[in-house]
Amino acid sequence: MEMEIKPSEKPDSTRWASNAWALLCAIRSQSPLIQCITNFVSMDLMANTLLSAGASPAMIHSVEEIPDFTPHTRALCVNVGTLSPNWLPAMKAAAELACKSGKPWVLDPVAAGASGFRLRACLELVELKPCVIRGNASEIIALSRASIGLTKGVDSSHESIDAVEAAKSLAQASGAIVAVSGAVDIVTDGERVVGAHNGVPMMQRITATGCSVTALIAAFVAVDPVNAFEATASALSIFGVAGEMGMNMAKGPATLRMHLIDSLYGLDEADVLSRVNITSLPR
Amino acid sequence: MEMEIKPSEKPDSTRWASNAWALLCAIRSQSPLIQCITNFVSMDLMANTLLSAGASPAMIHSVEEIPDFTPHTRALCVNVGTLSPNWLPAMKAAAELACKSGKPWVLDPVAAGASGFRLRACLELVELKPCVIRGNASEIIALSRASIGLTKGVDSSHESIDAVEAAKSLAQASGAIVAVSGAVDIVTDGERVVGAHNGVPMMQRITATGCSVTALIAAFVAVDPVNAFEATASALSIFGVAGEMGMNMAKGPATLRMHLIDSLYGLDEADVLSRVNITSLPR
Amino acid sequence: MEMEIKPSEKPDSTRWASNAWALLCAIRSQSPLIQCITNFVSMDLMANTLLSAGASPAMIHSVEEIPDFTPHTRALCVNVGTLSPNWLPAMKAAAELACKSGKPWVLDPVAAGASGFRLRACLELVELKPCVIRGNASEIIALSRASIGLTKGVDSSHESIDAVEAAKSLAQASGAIVAVSGAVDIVTDGERVVGAHNGVPMMQRITATGCSVTALIAAFVAVDPVNAFEATASALSIFGVAGEMGMNMAKGPATLRMHLIDSLYGLDEADVLSRVNITSLPR
Repeated sequence: MEMEIKPSEKPDSTRWASNAWALLCAIRSQSPLIQCITNFVSMDLMANTLLSAGASPAMIHSVEEIPDFTPHTRALCVNVGTLSPNWLPAMKAAAELACKSGKPWVLDPVAAGASGFRLRACLELVELKPCVIRGNASEIIALSRASIGLTKGVDSSHESIDAVEAAKSLAQASGAIVAVSGAVDIVTDGERVVGAHNGVPMMQRITATGCSVTALIAAFVAVDPVNAFEATASALSIFGVAGEMGMNMAKGPATLRMHLIDSLYGLDEADVLSRVNITSLPR
Repeated sequence: MEMEIKPSEKPDSTRWASNAWALLCAIRSQSPLIQCITNFVSMDLMANTLLSAGASPAMIHSVEEIPDFTPHTRALCVNVGTLSPNWLPAMKAAAELACKSGKPWVLDPVAAGASGFRLRACLELVELKPCVIRGNASEIIALSRASIGLTKGVDSSHESIDAVEAAKSLAQASGAIVAVSGAVDIVTDGERVVGAHNGVPMMQRITATGCSVTALIAAFVAVDPVNAFEATASALSIFGVAGEMGMNMAKGPATLRMHLIDSLYGLDEADVLSRVNITSLPR
Repeated sequence: MEMEIKPSEKPDSTRWASNAWALLCAIRSQSPLIQCITNFVSMDLMANTLLSAGASPAMIHSVEEIPDFTPHTRALCVNVGTLSPNWLPAMKAAAELACKSGKPWVLDPVAAGASGFRLRACLELVELKPCVIRGNASEIIALSRASIGLTKGVDSSHESIDAVEAAKSLAQASGAIVAVSGAVDIVTDGERVVGAHNGVPMMQRITATGCSVTALIAAFVAVDPVNAFEATASALSIFGVAGEMGMNMAKGPATLRMHLIDSLYGLDEADVLSRVNITSLPR
């Protein structure tokens, strides 16, 4: 006698994996235009990440261009990694216009606690209603506390799991989905909390992988803006899966970087369904 | 009895291939200094493209340095990819000085139609007599029409062949050689039209390949400025050949990017003569 | 009868190699935070070089952030590659603060002779007491002469050995350790002169390798600031060793770039002890 599984009994992880695959297919078929106002270090890898996923990146940051250009995009990614005062007005203008046009925008508060200037800028951006905020544990804790405690550069000295409460508070206060990258990537809407258990530790030895997954989140929310919680977890997991598959061919951080991008480009349904590992976490 | 071929009967494509090889050899032996005022996304790949071809790149964009530095270069590449108002004066000053010193300069009007600001900047640059303008079909059409119709980011939503008339008009109006990248790369001086039938589609999934081939055009015209039409078609074809050879070893966009650069570095006479495929197109 | 070697008779090169290994281990265990105010072309490779060596890079260049951030770093790397007037105040403020906090800082005077503006900026930075200055022969000669003679872009048209006297003069005038990259890398404190005989010529066909080794020097002096002469020679040699090992797997500049980073990440004691080749040179 064969075992019968009703749809509602289908394991959670299988539903997450199917959804992640559906979103990746949507990106590949729709090729959503994603505007990135990002740091200088990450531009190359971020653009290549979006291209390999099937999206269409546009690194356009001039405040003069935002009224003409931003309305034609599907989502916006703002990253403060190499912030200077003259870039902030464009970030804010683009975020405001994205909101006004009903387009999702995603914030990466790189090194949020590194200076008072940077933390204030991040707080001003949070006021402009990002759809998703993704950072490492230290960044999310710094932003959540709105303190000026200094983090150690762009690296995380906390583990993601330490930041769950801070992430939930920030999500509740801001209305954004909050994602915390780490050994397990955490995603919360302030109530629900899931963990994406994909990726490999060596990804932290490649610059701009965090920035790039934030841009990938923008592509995922672009194709499913009403389910930003699911889209965010899916993007994190898919990027992690590409890292795992890349790791099989890698001998170090530089080969991993290359194979990660190739793997993201080549991911097929079987890869995604067998590897995506997203689970609910205790609240 | 052997068939006899007079020089004048030598097929067109053979002459093009021989000429492309001669120009590549000239770059390798002369190592021309190419100034690039370009966007942040492309700097790394552009510099590596020039280095692997044998040229000497210099990413110097400060208006303060142009009077001292630009006269020592052999050619200039101006790319508006991440344009902001404070970069435009340097682009214009360098272009003017290049012209005045009889050095060729090459314009890459990235996303020309993305905003009114950008299109106006491109039109101002076209006034400064570029030797070559290279873009994708949408960019060349936008620039040719001088309209503010928006393109879809830096991607092309038109095929190159759709832009032949626009390219010819732009060439006639500006006096520049105009190149349109696509499945077939089109080059025109306003009268003659040739197609370079090299390259592979996956090159479009790597950021900055278009920007980098524009810089390569600058290196080719640097060593043969009086034959800019031929030099431009040669550069496009040689870059495409490197892509084809790289594709033989690639598993995705990131391995292709790497093998393309290695192939460009390693190209030998047999590779070039057997692969360069440039043909006259109906006017 | 076995030959007996007293410690003092241990060959010089063995001591250098042991010391280089000890410093690399210190970087890997301490993960020193290195602030980089550098050019746009080099940011990606520089960050990945530091990460693969075990250090923690932070590309933070805004003058507003320096008072908060710079005191938390272990060393600073300043590189003038894509200098513009609005970046200079941050470079100077960070250098001053590093000195005041007793942190070493390292200067890379890219293309020092390319313009009067650039040479003056470099001279102003030299006044702020860098711990180490690293350039190619033309850059060191230009800086040493404090003339405005133009160099050929960022490439060296002199060999490192031609710059020994200029390097010694600059070291004596500035109080800095001066390093000259070339076929042999030269390091001097104004009295002693050593040569690091590692590396492969193809590294010059990869953009930003010079910039990246300067950042690596910053990481080495961060873990041993009182022996900056030894730390500088060690960093140059270790980077060269990674290049040699990468070259064994490379087919061109792009594969070399990748394997160099992987090799730097994977270097073990046997690699370092058998390959580091630093010797005293005649004064």
